[in-house]
Amino acid sequence: MYSNTHKIRVRYGETDKMGFVYYGVYAQYYEVGRVELLRSLGLSYKSLEDIGYELPVIDFQIKYKKPAFYDDEITVVTLLSENPSSKLIFNYECFNANKELLNIGSVTLIFVNSKTKKVCSPPKIFLKKLNSL
Amino acid sequence: MYSNTHKIRVRYGETDKMGFVYYGVYAQYYEVGRVELLRSLGLSYKSLEDIGYELPVIDFQIKYKKPAFYDDEITVVTLLSENPSSKLIFNYECFNANKELLNIGSVTLIFVNSKTKKVCSPPKIFLKKLNSL
Amino acid sequence: MYSNTHKIRVRYGETDKMGFVYYGVYAQYYEVGRVELLRSLGLSYKSLEDIGYELPVIDFQIKYKKPAFYDDEITVVTLLSENPSSKLIFNYECFNANKELLNIGSVTLIFVNSKTKKVCSPPKIFLKKLNSL
Amino acid sequence: MYSNTHKIRVRYGETDKMGFVYYGVYAQYYEVGRVELLRSLGLSYKSLEDIGYELPVIDFQIKYKKPAFYDDEITVVTLLSENPSSKLIFNYECFNANKELLNIGSVTLIFVNSKTKKVCSPPKIFLKKLNSL
Repeated sequence: MYSNTHKIRVRYGETDKMGFVYYGVYAQYYEVGRVELLRSLGLSYKSLEDIGYELPVIDFQIKYKKPAFYDDEITVVTLLSENPSSKLIFNYECFNANKELLNIGSVTLIFVNSKTKKVCSPPKIFLKKLNSL
Repeated sequence: MYSNTHKIRVRYGETDKMGFVYYGVYAQYYEVGRVELLRSLGLSYKSLEDIGYELPVIDFQIKYKKPAFYDDEITVVTLLSENPSSKLIFNYECFNANKELLNIGSVTLIFVNSKTKKVCSPPKIFLKKLNSL
Repeated sequence: MYSNTHKIRVRYGETDKMGFVYYGVYAQYYEVGRVELLRSLGLSYKSLEDIGYELPVIDFQIKYKKPAFYDDEITVVTLLSENPSSKLIFNYECFNANKELLNIGSVTLIFVNSKTKKVCSPPKIFLKKLNSL
Repeated sequence: MYSNTHKIRVRYGETDKMGFVYYGVYAQYYEVGRVELLRSLGLSYKSLEDIGYELPVIDFQIKYKKPAFYDDEITVVTLLSENPSSKLIFNYECFNANKELLNIGSVTLIFVNSKTKKVCSPPKIFLKKLNSL
């Protein structure tokens, strides 16, 4: 189990006319959460693409408990909960500055060979890095 | 059971570096789908807000089967599956022009009084309209 | 001088906490305007990319006169004002349903060879099509 | 003349199929730049709204010199170039990690009374703060 905590400041353009962070924006916050979790493990999402892998999202689920507002500093807690196979499952919790739970969710990504566009195993360097932690 | 079909053309700004529609963009496509379903029933989401209701999203789930690409014309099929209580549950399927299923999902919204910010029943005019269909 | 008129319905996710369409969203509306102008001339932006061209934006200017609101139907008037060289200059006006001018602007794109990433002339098929109109 | 430097990491969802940061995304980066400039001066954009002011954008101009890519760390340099009247004019330069200039631009905002929706002078507390610097 790997975890990471990352803070994101809400942008004006991310709010909607209710004054809330638009519900679709959390897809980006969750994306940032998992990229920063990987970076904290010494793994770069970008370099995975550079060596021939793509990681499309195949499942996204989120339950909204409380809204976030403009200029709030959101804490995104990301968990990588399983030994990765061809799938990576990330679990999430977002909190506001008062430590109130804003939402919980999960995102599943799948390793794809960027040339063949077929599902594949993670690169060895990725597994080696994870196993050495 | 109410249903609606609406077409959305993929914008360049909605694609990502993989060339796919970014996974978070479907939150907007689904939003358009339910608004157009309501409009097709003679109900305006905007006028719900004008008479004092807000409808925040409390749950969003989506499974991605195939990617959509730039300039694709996406068909969003929206179903309103239950007699509405304080919750509205919309179910979705998106298809590309070849009628391939791109994703399935659901979005749950909840009626909130925009002054008190408390959960409330749908306005009578809303229920009356639905029941008359 | 080529012109095109295209209507875009404002999405909820495109508004901000002021209740206005966020100022950066017009970049997408303008993008849709020029793509639909080209389509109306029998030219597909997508197929330009498919035959090896990219058209990055090098200049974007917009003056905002009035805000647009949720669910407004915006009319985007796009003009292609000059015989295209390696640059395409699009001029814009957006109107609301009351025919009030919302904003005026321009976007300049430049033809780039997608392999060499160098500025290049437009493809002959593009010029031929424009000249035949 | 006030200035601020702020770093923004490019999100995947901000790229487009060319692999570049989509041209409209810089509206958000510039927004973050000016909010952080104000914060560095002890002024909160959010609190301006809380005390009854809105600051819609009336002009946005940007010239793109080089693209930014996924995961790049962009340095946004923001300048507030004049003694503020009812207008605030921000000038911008963005750089990548190699200190290459990506784009230059400007954004003009105007003080509006959020009740009357009329143009107004900046709040005294705002001017006092700026003048004391």
